[in-house]
Amino acid sequence: MTTYNLSFAGSGRVAGSLCRNLFRAGNRIRQIVSPDRKEGMLLARDCQASWSPDLEFDNPNDVIIVAVPDHELSGVLSAMKCHEASIVAHTAGSFGLDVFPERIRKKGVFYPLQTFSKGRDTDLRDLPFILESSQPGTGELLKSLAESVGGKPYFINEENRRMLHLAAVFVNNFSNFMLTAGKEITMRAGASFELLFPLIKETFSKALENGPENSQTGPAVRNDRNTIEKHMDLLSFSPELQNIYREVSESIITYYNNRNL
Amino acid sequence: MTTYNLSFAGSGRVAGSLCRNLFRAGNRIRQIVSPDRKEGMLLARDCQASWSPDLEFDNPNDVIIVAVPDHELSGVLSAMKCHEASIVAHTAGSFGLDVFPERIRKKGVFYPLQTFSKGRDTDLRDLPFILESSQPGTGELLKSLAESVGGKPYFINEENRRMLHLAAVFVNNFSNFMLTAGKEITMRAGASFELLFPLIKETFSKALENGPENSQTGPAVRNDRNTIEKHMDLLSFSPELQNIYREVSESIITYYNNRNL
Repeated sequence: MTTYNLSFAGSGRVAGSLCRNLFRAGNRIRQIVSPDRKEGMLLARDCQASWSPDLEFDNPNDVIIVAVPDHELSGVLSAMKCHEASIVAHTAGSFGLDVFPERIRKKGVFYPLQTFSKGRDTDLRDLPFILESSQPGTGELLKSLAESVGGKPYFINEENRRMLHLAAVFVNNFSNFMLTAGKEITMRAGASFELLFPLIKETFSKALENGPENSQTGPAVRNDRNTIEKHMDLLSFSPELQNIYREVSESIITYYNNRNL
Repeated sequence: MTTYNLSFAGSGRVAGSLCRNLFRAGNRIRQIVSPDRKEGMLLARDCQASWSPDLEFDNPNDVIIVAVPDHELSGVLSAMKCHEASIVAHTAGSFGLDVFPERIRKKGVFYPLQTFSKGRDTDLRDLPFILESSQPGTGELLKSLAESVGGKPYFINEENRRMLHLAAVFVNNFSNFMLTAGKEITMRAGASFELLFPLIKETFSKALENGPENSQTGPAVRNDRNTIEKHMDLLSFSPELQNIYREVSESIITYYNNRNL
């Protein structure tokens, strides 16, 4: 298997997980560039790389993976200095190739469709990597990188990748917040969140097996206004939770009304 | 282990799962009463019971479990005829003991904190059963029934049980709908929902391990208005999804603003 010289801009959750996995897959990690000295040096040490706060990449054979917060991406790409033979790829699902400055010729998107956590070793096997590139050679290389960590590469254009990133917000960010809301309410009932674990596990395994659209239960899908009103009363301690309850319930009612037409 | 004579009012998802599990645990199932002849007879056959559409239970030693849709519960309890020595328990998380008519003396709540599906054999081991009863003997019996299928019994009063039921709506009904929304958007990106499976699995295992309130990522928790606006534009095809996106994002922003105070 071909291995590569890699460098990273960033040492956060995404950079850390990708870098460690790519290192374990046999790639050489050369430079970690990040403003966070502690995280950057830790990651560099783990992957036998060097750390620096300066966005200068000197090896023309490197693939530079830019995994930084979305709002810093454009600034980092503009500020970084690298050889024009280097391939530069960012990991942001909601940005395209147009975020790169003109002078970077070999550019790509290397977007792992996953949620990453600090201190959590995320398994990348079978993980979809959504790829885009400015030219075939770059694309092949990104594909090979994704495969080296057991991932599944997909070439998907910018518009559809942005949609996938949005879908990820719903299934990850929003469903996670529903669990947070459920935990708050459970604690208000004087009970432990663990009481809900079997329900949560079944919710997700059922949705994946039967499709979430076929797994919907509860007062909203039955349009049971009586129970919905009682729940709204119970939520009087939190206008925010009431807003969510109302909006999501109305959406469920509308969705299943239209579906049954 | 003590076993019981059981009868059921209802033959739907909850009744079917409880009845089959209680039968397998060694209890005798006598009568299945339900208006649905096909489902009722099928369940009766599986559990060596008789089926009837008439709400008459003649054995004084029976425990009668009433597992019917919420909006039918009060009507079924009023209409049913049974010996006053029989114990009657309903399975509805959002109803209390006051839904029973006066003449039923031994009454209880036997609420399994789970989502049940037709044709899906739900595992009841370690499942919390939220119990309430009108007198100690009844409570002991319901506890023993829950334990016979491997469940974990909890005596929780009506107010807190209603809260738990509401929490279940958030973690099950609402998070499931977020997956449905994500699936719709994924299909709009021309991609298969399966691309999101690793993300969905990680979302839930992370939330259970680290707590959902510590697992929140995405544009809303960062208060990244730029990405939120871009997502709202992408959702212009669906005012309902826009409403959910706006409301849930605002709730996440508010929640984490307050938390950081």
